[in-house]
Amino acid sequence: MLEAVDMSVKMKKKEYKAAFDELAPKLGELQRTAKEKGVPVVLVVEGWEGSNKGSLVNQLLQALDPRGYLFIAPPGRGEERYPFLIPYWEITPPAGKMTILAGSWYREVLRRRLEKGEHAKDYSGVFRDICAFERHLADSGTVVLKFFCHMEKKEQKKRLEARAADPDLSWSVSERDWLENREYDSFLFCAEEMLSFTGTEYAPWTVVAAGSFEFAAWKILSTVERVLRERLSGEEWPATGGVLGGVEYEKSAALSTTEPDGDLSAKEYEKQLAALQSELKSLEIRVFRESLPVILLFEGVDAAGKGGAIRRITEALYPMNYTVHPVGAPNDLERSHHYMWRFWKDFPRFGHIAVFDRSWYGRVLVERVEGFCSPAEWHRAYREINETERHLTDFGTLLLKFWLQIDQEEQLRRFESRHDDPFRAWKLTDEDWRNREKWDDYQKAAGEMLVRTGTPYAPWTVVATNSKRLARIKILTTVTEGIHKALEGRADRVSGELRNTKRKKA
Amino acid sequence: MLEAVDMSVKMKKKEYKAAFDELAPKLGELQRTAKEKGVPVVLVVEGWEGSNKGSLVNQLLQALDPRGYLFIAPPGRGEERYPFLIPYWEITPPAGKMTILAGSWYREVLRRRLEKGEHAKDYSGVFRDICAFERHLADSGTVVLKFFCHMEKKEQKKRLEARAADPDLSWSVSERDWLENREYDSFLFCAEEMLSFTGTEYAPWTVVAAGSFEFAAWKILSTVERVLRERLSGEEWPATGGVLGGVEYEKSAALSTTEPDGDLSAKEYEKQLAALQSELKSLEIRVFRESLPVILLFEGVDAAGKGGAIRRITEALYPMNYTVHPVGAPNDLERSHHYMWRFWKDFPRFGHIAVFDRSWYGRVLVERVEGFCSPAEWHRAYREINETERHLTDFGTLLLKFWLQIDQEEQLRRFESRHDDPFRAWKLTDEDWRNREKWDDYQKAAGEMLVRTGTPYAPWTVVATNSKRLARIKILTTVTEGIHKALEGRADRVSGELRNTKRKKA
Repeated sequence: MLEAVDMSVKMKKKEYKAAFDELAPKLGELQRTAKEKGVPVVLVVEGWEGSNKGSLVNQLLQALDPRGYLFIAPPGRGEERYPFLIPYWEITPPAGKMTILAGSWYREVLRRRLEKGEHAKDYSGVFRDICAFERHLADSGTVVLKFFCHMEKKEQKKRLEARAADPDLSWSVSERDWLENREYDSFLFCAEEMLSFTGTEYAPWTVVAAGSFEFAAWKILSTVERVLRERLSGEEWPATGGVLGGVEYEKSAALSTTEPDGDLSAKEYEKQLAALQSELKSLEIRVFRESLPVILLFEGVDAAGKGGAIRRITEALYPMNYTVHPVGAPNDLERSHHYMWRFWKDFPRFGHIAVFDRSWYGRVLVERVEGFCSPAEWHRAYREINETERHLTDFGTLLLKFWLQIDQEEQLRRFESRHDDPFRAWKLTDEDWRNREKWDDYQKAAGEMLVRTGTPYAPWTVVATNSKRLARIKILTTVTEGIHKALEGRADRVSGELRNTKRKKA
Repeated sequence: MLEAVDMSVKMKKKEYKAAFDELAPKLGELQRTAKEKGVPVVLVVEGWEGSNKGSLVNQLLQALDPRGYLFIAPPGRGEERYPFLIPYWEITPPAGKMTILAGSWYREVLRRRLEKGEHAKDYSGVFRDICAFERHLADSGTVVLKFFCHMEKKEQKKRLEARAADPDLSWSVSERDWLENREYDSFLFCAEEMLSFTGTEYAPWTVVAAGSFEFAAWKILSTVERVLRERLSGEEWPATGGVLGGVEYEKSAALSTTEPDGDLSAKEYEKQLAALQSELKSLEIRVFRESLPVILLFEGVDAAGKGGAIRRITEALYPMNYTVHPVGAPNDLERSHHYMWRFWKDFPRFGHIAVFDRSWYGRVLVERVEGFCSPAEWHRAYREINETERHLTDFGTLLLKFWLQIDQEEQLRRFESRHDDPFRAWKLTDEDWRNREKWDDYQKAAGEMLVRTGTPYAPWTVVATNSKRLARIKILTTVTEGIHKALEGRADRVSGELRNTKRKKA
């Protein structure tokens, strides 16, 4: 693919200057239109070391209004403790803003791959994650623009040598830069594979011949201008693609957990609880020392006992090792982003336990039932969620999901008891009563969710919580067993996976 | 101070359990009241290694609603590249939320000081910065609670030995922990000094005898309960203390810059501009390599040419090395925080250039004139700003502040020319016309600002911009000269200062 690029193109300084002066105000205008229409834009510039990526990007920045963009040099350290997409999700633009990256998620399949000598290895899992990421953005209305600045081996060598000979700049030529030139063919292979696997209709690549600075700058500016102009004209925004086939799920079999007989005595419960909590305490040390990221996710019917169950877990843990994320309605900033954005920043690092009290499943529960998103959006969400969870579990994260279920009569009893207790009355809101009226809608949504997002790598555990004691014991048992299994599974495949090879103490 | 603590106090498990059950719902209630009243709370737990700080904090977390607090273990790496308060400002709570810290800004004057063997050194600058930080929070209505968990040398040794002997926990005892016990007396000295220098009426310390876990947990919980109850009852919220004496500044002499005679020819301007930009380009490399943080701050009359001046600077720079921060009205999240909060996260790291297009001076300009804050608040702001800028410049940051001034007639001409230009008409808003009507109020505010915040470490440069060419040359000259001077000054005092001793390549 890259061999076919015409590298002889040139542009005169003066010619470029005139083109810049013509393009700059147009770009400014388009930026304001994007803002008015609330369209987010992501712009990626990748390419060879020495291809002047930084200065090329600066030409674009000069043409833009700083109020409308965020420029990101590669995110900082510590990232190997997280699934690799996390720092990039964090800087995706809200409605109407633009994020410009020199050094993007493609480092994972270009530079890092080369540094690790892994150009022969199968990277399809990483390509799948990248495509899913870009599709999630594009489907929600983000314009994704990607540039690859291409250079020939000889020209790159010439530029590196010139830099190394300049006393002001020699410090900036690293061993890594020379490696890229020495291993030009391996890098070329990685770049070609990347371009072909991730050049999609929703996020296409533009290859830029970077031999002539002026030509390359013009190519980038004019492409940005043209694509934005095309995408911002017309009314077909935001995109609504990616809808899955509409299988209807009526009240799901998954929800009809038979109520277990009887209950535990208070004494027996305290005994089992203490034993399980003590086991969890020792497991916590192993989780930390063996760098296992853990997500415990709780969804369920209102008043089914999520809070109490979570407390039985956290009271056994050390506060440095866990975080509870209570999920409510999104705030203004969160609302101006992709719906998954606010969860990405809370995914746990190596050795940390993240407890979600409600979660991203709100998209296919409350947002679906209350009409806060369109049918196309919540239909699409099942796949988006599965892809996201796969990204996490591929990284090595243990993801345990619980659905807590009570029946309608029990819910009424609990609402009334809350209402009468001065210290718990605040827990009961008008919204709880309103949701109760939509009981059947919520049950239908929950049933479909359990079926569509119960995956081998991130299964649901449905817990009947009419007996709180039995439910808490079941949840704690599932958690301890799950952690045990994950820690044992890890021992078997230590060297097998991409990012797990890098495990360090958090 | 610590010698006087009665370390023999004890509490029975059962007794503590009963106290917890009584305190927990009260704390939950107070947390909700704080939320309703919009009162933020900061809670710090410091103390000896081995004093069970983590588990003590976990007792408190069990009593609280996770929706209302954020628990912070020490912020991560990379922080030595920033002034030390930055990561802590970032996690100060918005209205109605609580931040709980185990490992706070006091690490700087406890652990780090010990590790660096600097207990004999003068830390008053750091204490001053910490007190200013806590006063800024307290004055804006935040409740600041601080606990120091105290232990005796013998008891600490016993606990460390017990941990080291436990096969499950021995890994967790570090050389640093033993250091603290070996150098108990030095640590005690640092702790005593810290307690006496930073125990203030707006942020007092509570020393906790941590020999008995139950007693210590009860002490913390009951103190939090009592202080919150006291602070949340009554109507005297938020605090309005800290007002400076109300010297009135009429139209300031600082603003009456005489208009320079004549102008530059286009040719002469291009020549001087190119020379200055090329100088800035080489200085930029030194800024990066010698790890100098730089802030270039622009305030001024509407249409005085801030944007154009900034562009003449940034077009000479490499995008990885600078960030332009355009400052507009705060968003919802920012509004729920201290007014300085949003700026702290944008202060530059080592070797980075941050350009502020408007800034925190909005507090004493637009917010003052438009009545968005009370007179007590903007009066207080001069001192708060000076303290903040001192913190930055003590760290080694070069801070250059520009006020761009045109007269009323020139502003009108520029408004009208914008109005007539299709590509620039968007720059002119109704707000600009409204602000123009308050010309005198803005000039009065600017004059007072220049006098009150023109400090030896962060001086203002007032630039008459009726001639854009002369103004841009003057600004670029001030910037290059300022950077030159800062780089030379640094060479003289490399080992002289607290945090500069740690300079690393960014």
